[in-house]
Amino acid sequence: MRAIALYREEDQPRVVERDQPEPTDGEVLVRMHQVGVDGTDRRIVAGELGEFPDGEDHLILGHEAVGIVADSNGTDLDEGQAVVPTVRRPLADRGSYFEHGEPDMAPPDTFVECGIFDAHGFMAEYVTISPEYLVTVPDSLADHGFLAEPTSVCEKALDQAMAARSAFAWEPESALVLGTGSLGLLALARLVDGDEFERIYCLGRRDLTDQRVEIINRLGATYVDSRETPVTEIPDTHEAVDFIYEGTGYPPHAHDAVSALAANGIATLQGVPESRTEEIDLGAFHRDLVTANKALLGVVNARRSHFEAAVDTVATFPDWFVGRVVTEVYDPTNAVTAFTDEEAIKTAVTFER
Amino acid sequence: MRAIALYREEDQPRVVERDQPEPTDGEVLVRMHQVGVDGTDRRIVAGELGEFPDGEDHLILGHEAVGIVADSNGTDLDEGQAVVPTVRRPLADRGSYFEHGEPDMAPPDTFVECGIFDAHGFMAEYVTISPEYLVTVPDSLADHGFLAEPTSVCEKALDQAMAARSAFAWEPESALVLGTGSLGLLALARLVDGDEFERIYCLGRRDLTDQRVEIINRLGATYVDSRETPVTEIPDTHEAVDFIYEGTGYPPHAHDAVSALAANGIATLQGVPESRTEEIDLGAFHRDLVTANKALLGVVNARRSHFEAAVDTVATFPDWFVGRVVTEVYDPTNAVTAFTDEEAIKTAVTFER
Repeated sequence: MRAIALYREEDQPRVVERDQPEPTDGEVLVRMHQVGVDGTDRRIVAGELGEFPDGEDHLILGHEAVGIVADSNGTDLDEGQAVVPTVRRPLADRGSYFEHGEPDMAPPDTFVECGIFDAHGFMAEYVTISPEYLVTVPDSLADHGFLAEPTSVCEKALDQAMAARSAFAWEPESALVLGTGSLGLLALARLVDGDEFERIYCLGRRDLTDQRVEIINRLGATYVDSRETPVTEIPDTHEAVDFIYEGTGYPPHAHDAVSALAANGIATLQGVPESRTEEIDLGAFHRDLVTANKALLGVVNARRSHFEAAVDTVATFPDWFVGRVVTEVYDPTNAVTAFTDEEAIKTAVTFER
Repeated sequence: MRAIALYREEDQPRVVERDQPEPTDGEVLVRMHQVGVDGTDRRIVAGELGEFPDGEDHLILGHEAVGIVADSNGTDLDEGQAVVPTVRRPLADRGSYFEHGEPDMAPPDTFVECGIFDAHGFMAEYVTISPEYLVTVPDSLADHGFLAEPTSVCEKALDQAMAARSAFAWEPESALVLGTGSLGLLALARLVDGDEFERIYCLGRRDLTDQRVEIINRLGATYVDSRETPVTEIPDTHEAVDFIYEGTGYPPHAHDAVSALAANGIATLQGVPESRTEEIDLGAFHRDLVTANKALLGVVNARRSHFEAAVDTVATFPDWFVGRVVTEVYDPTNAVTAFTDEEAIKTAVTFER
């Protein structure tokens, strides 16, 4: 079978031939349909992020996937069932967060991440996985169900943000997404579709004619061009917002987002930026957090309940939106282009052709 | 009657004579027993903080108080009942947070704060107050019940921190208090007395022979001298901690606290620092928040439920602790000294002598 792998010392993924894996007891065989490519994958290929599995010279890529159970191997899953895999797997001694069904809260160094850290990913024709790490999806999502993984992070962010504001009667009205990458646009579609907020903004650095701005407008959100209106000026030009979802990995956003929040507001950070030293007024930052009861939450990964919520969310995405966000789907022969297409919002590799 | 007031353009409070106030309909008359002095009061006197009430040339000081109902004026409160006043009052159009009983979450500019912003405080022999803003306390707290106000902020911080970590099975073990001022030591006593954490640390800049370090040791907490072990090194020298309560107003703590947290940890900020520009690695700060699911919460003021919890907490404080934290109690004639005693942990003014 074919798989897409990155080799040590190489800066482009390759299509490789592998033996089709055999499921061991308790595992099922999944035939992959489509596997998405995101910024994390591009950074892995660029050598900025990720770890090769111990003792191996390559990493099979891909952590956003959807496939079909090809061999249920005696488990409760039905053959032909569409499934989306979760990303984290525990190290040998399963930590308590895996036992609780909350692998997203497992401390660093207690897990591997398929296709990212120390474990092969899903960009292969066949993958063997325990049903514990599979979320079932309706047949209608057999192709673009891989969007559930990036959307699950937004579900987790909302879950944690709402919990963090549950100690008082929070009545949020406005939300702001930072970033027009696929993570940002998926979060935007989720927020527009949900009933948590009435007014939704999305900040980016794109011209008004850009396809991303067209998507933002068509979703019914308000686009903010950060070249004209930096995050810190949004309270003056638009309004101080109740919730911010950061999807840029741009380091100053950890600081700037707080000043764009309304009283009692909360910003969740999802990006994993490189180091960058800046001069900031830490006194003002501290004072603003305190006197207006603001909160800043780091959010990474997602658990089964967030994947399940994301599956429901992705199922409601209009076709035009999915079609415009998933700019191009490549067959394995051209998979390298899925990682290098600079203009694409989101690409995927399909094993169905 | 006597009251302690700060006049515009003056840098010392004065004892002034005022007519005893008459309670209007729905108000009671409270005879004040003791009124505490904290860092906020000292900063008001230093001209760094606070606002004089509109059109007045002076501000009656004091926001930490305990007294006795002297005239119940037809309300449900009993005469002779010991009471502690809350601090915030709504502006003319009561905001929704006051209606909800959550004045601590009211946005800035929708309230005044007695003895701090735009409203007279409690450092007077008699004060008239609506029962809505009074919390009853047992007779045993008629003297040091004023400690409920600073302790209520810690109750709120715990309330909000626990809510913020309620979206997963958090099992915290360790807590760190930043600061050995009265706010820090009261929080420390609360955390030692509570069952949320097993190991409690307190960071300060004092010699081991200092009275504050003696109190920390006697409470059973572990003292960390920040001159030897900065906050950022606590994970190496002691352990990464699950909860941090900042009680210093030292601007770098908004940043440094995050790096001292364990995975899934949360730091609450309570100080209101002056501006201070620092160079920090915002990328590392952002990354640390995200990859370890850390959280940073600003916390200000407290509502009735937090005052009630604080009253229960203060009632459990051992006598030795109260005696050592409240270093000196002054009569009104010497009240100025209560604001200038540099060596004191906490002072108070009594109207009972």
